[in-house]
Amino acid sequence: MAHYFEDIEVGTVHETGSYEITKAEIVEFAEKYDPQPFHVDEAAAADSAFGELVASGWHTASICMRLLVDDYIDPESAMGAGGVDELRWIRPVRPGDTLRCEIEILEKRPSKSNPEMGHVRTKLTGYNDDDEPVISWKSLSMVRRRE
Amino acid sequence: MAHYFEDIEVGTVHETGSYEITKAEIVEFAEKYDPQPFHVDEAAAADSAFGELVASGWHTASICMRLLVDDYIDPESAMGAGGVDELRWIRPVRPGDTLRCEIEILEKRPSKSNPEMGHVRTKLTGYNDDDEPVISWKSLSMVRRRE
Repeated sequence: MAHYFEDIEVGTVHETGSYEITKAEIVEFAEKYDPQPFHVDEAAAADSAFGELVASGWHTASICMRLLVDDYIDPESAMGAGGVDELRWIRPVRPGDTLRCEIEILEKRPSKSNPEMGHVRTKLTGYNDDDEPVISWKSLSMVRRRE
Repeated sequence: MAHYFEDIEVGTVHETGSYEITKAEIVEFAEKYDPQPFHVDEAAAADSAFGELVASGWHTASICMRLLVDDYIDPESAMGAGGVDELRWIRPVRPGDTLRCEIEILEKRPSKSNPEMGHVRTKLTGYNDDDEPVISWKSLSMVRRRE
């Protein structure tokens, strides 16, 4: 899993494992962080534009982060990210959906200020069981150089 | 709290209540969604660039969402958001920090395709107890019109 700045190839696509999201987890997350009716209450969700309970978009993003940590981020070389751009919730995520992510390397460049690191721009896309994209974002992260 | 499209004034700033983030909650969230050493392990965090345990950026975003739902989003008029742009983690969030958010209305325009709604662009900024910004993002959300 080690991937220092020098190992990263623009154009490569990495795949993560998968994560099944249950109704109980959707409700538990949303009760804490996003208690809108269509995330926490099945009856209210049935009456909403979604027609059924759906996951908070922040929950979907957090699950993708978990997949990144498990299967993509290298703790030896990762130096964090300052944020993400163009975070999009493309389709609702529903109880029983199984999510997986792809990470495409868009761009890399050495840091001008810090010779120990480089900047890497990636695009993450999360898919459901039907291979439909449900979430995407772009991030600019800092990655350690070998020497 | 009702704010239909017609009620929204560009330039207005709304303030939310506050939310104290504990060490236990930082670790609990991160063990589920972002188990990098500096989010889940005090000793490893002390050795990291942060020097102490810090909250996952997705946790900070989720707490801001909770403040939005409690104190800003009007369930009568809110029609969701397709995503956010320029999400930035500006400063680390630490155990014991108390967060609050400000929401500034940047822009509004009626929908061309749906006469029942309008688009509203806002900027959210989350602050710590020292009134330092720790997170920000811009979102484009759909808001119901009165008629």
